[in-house]
Amino acid sequence: MSSVHECAVGVDIGATKIAAGLVDGSGRVLASQTVPTPEAGGEEAFHAVVQVVGQIKQHAQRHDLCIRGVGVGTAGQVDSKKGAVRSATINLPEWGGIPLAERIRAEVELPVRIDNDGNVALLAEVWAGAAQGHEHALGLTLGTGIGGGVVTGGRILHGTWGGAAELGHVCVNLGGPRCTCGSNGCMEVYASGRGMVERLQERLMARPGDASAAARAYVSKHGLDRVTAALVFAWARAGDKLACETLDEANAALAYGVTSLIHVFNPTVVVVGGGVVAANPSIVPELAERVHGLGMPSLVQAVSITAARFGAWSGVIGAAALILQDEAVYG
Amino acid sequence: MSSVHECAVGVDIGATKIAAGLVDGSGRVLASQTVPTPEAGGEEAFHAVVQVVGQIKQHAQRHDLCIRGVGVGTAGQVDSKKGAVRSATINLPEWGGIPLAERIRAEVELPVRIDNDGNVALLAEVWAGAAQGHEHALGLTLGTGIGGGVVTGGRILHGTWGGAAELGHVCVNLGGPRCTCGSNGCMEVYASGRGMVERLQERLMARPGDASAAARAYVSKHGLDRVTAALVFAWARAGDKLACETLDEANAALAYGVTSLIHVFNPTVVVVGGGVVAANPSIVPELAERVHGLGMPSLVQAVSITAARFGAWSGVIGAAALILQDEAVYG
Repeated sequence: MSSVHECAVGVDIGATKIAAGLVDGSGRVLASQTVPTPEAGGEEAFHAVVQVVGQIKQHAQRHDLCIRGVGVGTAGQVDSKKGAVRSATINLPEWGGIPLAERIRAEVELPVRIDNDGNVALLAEVWAGAAQGHEHALGLTLGTGIGGGVVTGGRILHGTWGGAAELGHVCVNLGGPRCTCGSNGCMEVYASGRGMVERLQERLMARPGDASAAARAYVSKHGLDRVTAALVFAWARAGDKLACETLDEANAALAYGVTSLIHVFNPTVVVVGGGVVAANPSIVPELAERVHGLGMPSLVQAVSITAARFGAWSGVIGAAALILQDEAVYG
Repeated sequence: MSSVHECAVGVDIGATKIAAGLVDGSGRVLASQTVPTPEAGGEEAFHAVVQVVGQIKQHAQRHDLCIRGVGVGTAGQVDSKKGAVRSATINLPEWGGIPLAERIRAEVELPVRIDNDGNVALLAEVWAGAAQGHEHALGLTLGTGIGGGVVTGGRILHGTWGGAAELGHVCVNLGGPRCTCGSNGCMEVYASGRGMVERLQERLMARPGDASAAARAYVSKHGLDRVTAALVFAWARAGDKLACETLDEANAALAYGVTSLIHVFNPTVVVVGGGVVAANPSIVPELAERVHGLGMPSLVQAVSITAARFGAWSGVIGAAALILQDEAVYG
């Protein structure tokens, strides 16, 4: 007897954890399994993926649920046509070059689709979250770095091989700090968690006398290396001058970058999520206010700028949507 | 007896001239007609369009050529779905709000499609020019301002109502000069003809002592207002320090903006055209060299950065392609 529910397995592969979930046709996570990402990456990470998918598959079988396929969102650059990871991030070693879709398919005997984590996070929001029903949407995930996704005409923007939508690597200051991508002054160097920490560390080194007593005491006890994004927000809330400057710079960088992207895509919605937003939710209304006063009124004024609905689950839900909303992916 | 040739009329509406051409299925211009754009714009400009289209239509009838329709590329923001000009530029008054497609159709009794001049210029290159056969292409037209166009997956990127691809309004320096769009430090404020003139004028005012004798003599005789983009290039070639700085700044702004756009679109080709390129062709190889050394190697290195093939005719040819290549527009 087949179930009324048609489900997919969504897998979210990050540098710290691998999560798999059984997701139904309305975007609900019916069951899930999370394991730490093996530090060795590569084959060990692959086997961890196969293991969690197998557990979810067994769960579905026990509950008589039909699985249409396995969707995978992964860190790193993804060749979405070939279903392969093209290049890994430094935090997920030996991950580049793996023909991930083909290898998972061989293990689990289900259709498999993979995409990068930025695209998948936006797809979750367009399917069942804060951008539901929007045909033209931009997504930013503000975490350690900045992930991006674009949906245009109802479909994920992939570009030539799937490398499109690196929205964190839009330059907003050509004279700014060097970015890991090779360019300078990208949104990511100012508004990602790592970027804010680095910018505050620079200020603390250059102008220690401008720091608050609390910030100075922390640095003197724990060292500059132990500054975190959470501390940037906490110190800024307490009025620390250098933390306020750092946060203001991040807000400005985001506003100029997002305005540029609205000029380029003419979307109706921009969804902003990730750990930075979770830790400092006011960044989203602040961004909306700035963007609506910048750029071409005909393009920026009607755009809704909103927080993501799905937090930590956006990867799993969006990955499942690669299967359940396939017209949005390859339509 | 019907002809073997299937043609379209392409109309290019700019602030200074209105050109119409009879274009065949391989992108050749068989006949053309150009009139100055009436200074009053609005209804007078509309009647000039109808007049030149009528002349081309008569020419086709005399030569027994079948016209499939009329494609129109116009300055200003275009609602491509409604076929209407949404907002005019300051150089083409009373042009906003005109339901151009519908009104031309009523006059010439042929199918009509309109789009903005940046999209149309790129479409010409993708159809029959420097980007022929490319499915993922970016186009920049460096003129008084900077026009942009994007083709992704073989189709023009329109966004929600047709306002997408304002590529000149990608910010590269959030602390830079105010742009006409409302943002700051857009590519256009540095690398358009008007932008380069304004940046050189600022330098000549602030540091007249750094200017060459020739530049100082010109300004003293004709006034700062009479500096042109052609003079920026001529003085830079002669070694004038301020003109060299201005041109270098334009090249850097273009390189950072184009790198950002490659990160966003993952294209295989970037086509650069317009009056600035015609006057200073070395800007294209210079851009290619800079971009190939900036940004993510996986995205930037394989991109061909090339000069447009069609100069002044790109508007007419691309407008005709709106009819003859309709799968690229609404496919």
